Amino acid sequence: MQRVQVIKGFSKLSKEEKLKQVTSYFDNPKEAERILKTFWHRDQKIQNRLEEFSENTITNFYVPYGIAPNFLINNQLYLIPMVIEESSVVAAAASSAKFWSEHGGFHTEVVSMNKIGQVHFIWEGDKENLVNKAAELKRELVHGTKHLTENMEKRGGGLINIEIIDMTNELDNYYQLKASFDTVDSMGANFINTILEEFALILDRFFAKQEDWPEHERHCEVIMAILSNYTPECLVKTEVEASIEAFKNCDNNLSAEKFVSKFEKAVRIAQIDVHRAATHNKGVFNGIDAVVLATGNDFRAVEAGGHTFASRNGRYSSLTDVRIENGKMNYSLTIPMALGTVGGLTSLHPMAKFSLELLNNPNAEQLMMIAASVGLANNYSAVKSLITKGIQAGHMKMHLFNILNHLGASKQEKDKAVEFFKERKVSYSSVNDLISSLRSN
Amino acid sequence: MQRVQVIKGFSKLSKEEKLKQVTSYFDNPKEAERILKTFWHRDQKIQNRLEEFSENTITNFYVPYGIAPNFLINNQLYLIPMVIEESSVVAAAASSAKFWSEHGGFHTEVVSMNKIGQVHFIWEGDKENLVNKAAELKRELVHGTKHLTENMEKRGGGLINIEIIDMTNELDNYYQLKASFDTVDSMGANFINTILEEFALILDRFFAKQEDWPEHERHCEVIMAILSNYTPECLVKTEVEASIEAFKNCDNNLSAEKFVSKFEKAVRIAQIDVHRAATHNKGVFNGIDAVVLATGNDFRAVEAGGHTFASRNGRYSSLTDVRIENGKMNYSLTIPMALGTVGGLTSLHPMAKFSLELLNNPNAEQLMMIAASVGLANNYSAVKSLITKGIQAGHMKMHLFNILNHLGASKQEKDKAVEFFKERKVSYSSVNDLISSLRSN
Repeated sequence: MQRVQVIKGFSKLSKEEKLKQVTSYFDNPKEAERILKTFWHRDQKIQNRLEEFSENTITNFYVPYGIAPNFLINNQLYLIPMVIEESSVVAAAASSAKFWSEHGGFHTEVVSMNKIGQVHFIWEGDKENLVNKAAELKRELVHGTKHLTENMEKRGGGLINIEIIDMTNELDNYYQLKASFDTVDSMGANFINTILEEFALILDRFFAKQEDWPEHERHCEVIMAILSNYTPECLVKTEVEASIEAFKNCDNNLSAEKFVSKFEKAVRIAQIDVHRAATHNKGVFNGIDAVVLATGNDFRAVEAGGHTFASRNGRYSSLTDVRIENGKMNYSLTIPMALGTVGGLTSLHPMAKFSLELLNNPNAEQLMMIAASVGLANNYSAVKSLITKGIQAGHMKMHLFNILNHLGASKQEKDKAVEFFKERKVSYSSVNDLISSLRSN
Repeated sequence: MQRVQVIKGFSKLSKEEKLKQVTSYFDNPKEAERILKTFWHRDQKIQNRLEEFSENTITNFYVPYGIAPNFLINNQLYLIPMVIEESSVVAAAASSAKFWSEHGGFHTEVVSMNKIGQVHFIWEGDKENLVNKAAELKRELVHGTKHLTENMEKRGGGLINIEIIDMTNELDNYYQLKASFDTVDSMGANFINTILEEFALILDRFFAKQEDWPEHERHCEVIMAILSNYTPECLVKTEVEASIEAFKNCDNNLSAEKFVSKFEKAVRIAQIDVHRAATHNKGVFNGIDAVVLATGNDFRAVEAGGHTFASRNGRYSSLTDVRIENGKMNYSLTIPMALGTVGGLTSLHPMAKFSLELLNNPNAEQLMMIAASVGLANNYSAVKSLITKGIQAGHMKMHLFNILNHLGASKQEKDKAVEFFKERKVSYSSVNDLISSLRSN
């Protein structure tokens, strides 16, 4: 690699020019360019469309697209599309799905669908004045955004509520307009942000025209207007339940009672220990994000909302809960999630569109229920592995294949390695040693 | 779509068979199959390798791969590879990078590199007995895993410390072995988990052989052994700083002083309001995850660690901080991050390998500093947009292109639409109306 230089006007270059510029720093620019181009979609029209999702795009990153079959969710069977680069996640989801499909499947419901947006503003004035005018202000906000909300209202959503929140205890003269929205089947970011920005303009005008207020009260400083990715009222719950004896074959060394008791302790630990909670929840997101990505939704939004929810009681904690009573174990996940099945990339990205079709074109609520169930499935599998054979047994088999590929192992060498490592610990050096010895024979 | 059936032995099918099975439910199976295949990599060997990263893989999901140029980080210029499906993120990173490259760039350092792993166990016994044997137990744990740690030690890492933590106040008879590790340039999950599972075996044997302990104390129940994705001691800090007058052209309507004061308030709000904090941090992760994905790392791990860190003081809060003093504004991000530049997919995924080469083959510490700086850059851009023109102005332009593509707009129609929407609000219906009217003329 040569030393990178300051580049002026990069965004103005054509894709080919960008590509040449980027690869010019490589020791072998032609080869670097060739590699990038092999990742272009073969259909120029689709490639162009993919490029327009983002900026300065020179190629695509491929993430494996796999299928977890046999997900029984609210009595409906699904083949779940999962986009994930990590080994074992799809296998874990599939194994969990199979087990639970034999025990009634996932029971799931959307608790509520309201999303939050805020206009943050600074106003130096007599709070009483604001309180007295609150109802009038709200009316103007609703009226002044009617032209923006009417389409959403036709689809069954719209603006739900507006509150004026006094935050002056936290920061001098700081208030919020806190609004809630139902965006039906769209993720809703553009809808909410457009309305909030209009709110900001209306708010400014509203203060300006209060002629009976003192001069300095007739102005407010809007700091920003934006939706929140924390959506505790856009919430989905999913659960599985089985009699204790259903767990009798989960492990050769554990009785059903012992398995369930150990499972319960593992979940309790994730509820009280922050270090464990983060990893426990990461297992939930492995499944959720794979569905979120596959359907063209925004996993950063889902992660931010879910993890914030996990810390809502003052200590970061497990998103799942376990209950053992009447001879049954109930395992559940409650998580906020803002997803869309219309708008955004959902119909523009051919693979997102394919995923939604594979899921029988769900609406946003259905997709929330599906994604949450896959998250619970993955977490269940992870906890089950951890309390039985350990996480490495499955993981290491995939790891072994990755190392073998890295070493350019042949089919024959791979078969021998799988046999050899059945009872041995996989590490790069141990695999390398084996392959070297096979090759020197 | 036909109704999906229970599938037995799906994982045992060949890729072609899986593909036929999945598409058989579609109204037009041949067309569905064709679409999936267009997303295969054209080089069969590369396609096979991508498939082996995960399970039940039938094709790839394409995420746009873009470049944010002009990142000056610790006096070194970088072209940053970013893998992200969301519009405006790469443009925002690039714009932030350009501004800060003219003001000294990003100054960043890795605070510490230790990762945490735990063996969680239940032991019913006299704590004094355990305390008295703690030193001996630790010696046996270190000694008994020497064969697993020696390679990592040669690379400069290894096992750093082991503590026995009494958690019995939280859950009856619950203890932890809490170990810290330095995994140098590997993300380290396999290394840490392999050692922890060995710890679990050693622990079990250790209790069994304490012949002077009462019978019931000679057994412990290991619940699980696993690394933590919460890595507050694997921590990176990045910051930018400029004199206040540097911000004089950030907005036509704001003086430099006013801009800085508004910026500070926006960050304070993200520090005290949970709804804002989640979204503020989401902006950080937009940048970080794009680099994490581009380099073949695990974004769920990074998200879990970062968000947990954001809640460490009992209230979920901003990961960034702002300081204004001596006529300067300093803006910083401190975030835990466990990344690898060797092992995992880093050299196996051709595009991950390309990304690392583009970044001049950084070690893990350097990659942490790069990713954190991109995260700060994206967050800076988002806050800057929010406090000036609003987030929708930039976002809506990209949104407009997505809608235009959806409507199959021609180049000419696109140009007219861009002109038309310069001063108007973009919505699906307004764009549809315009295109319809253009076409009916």
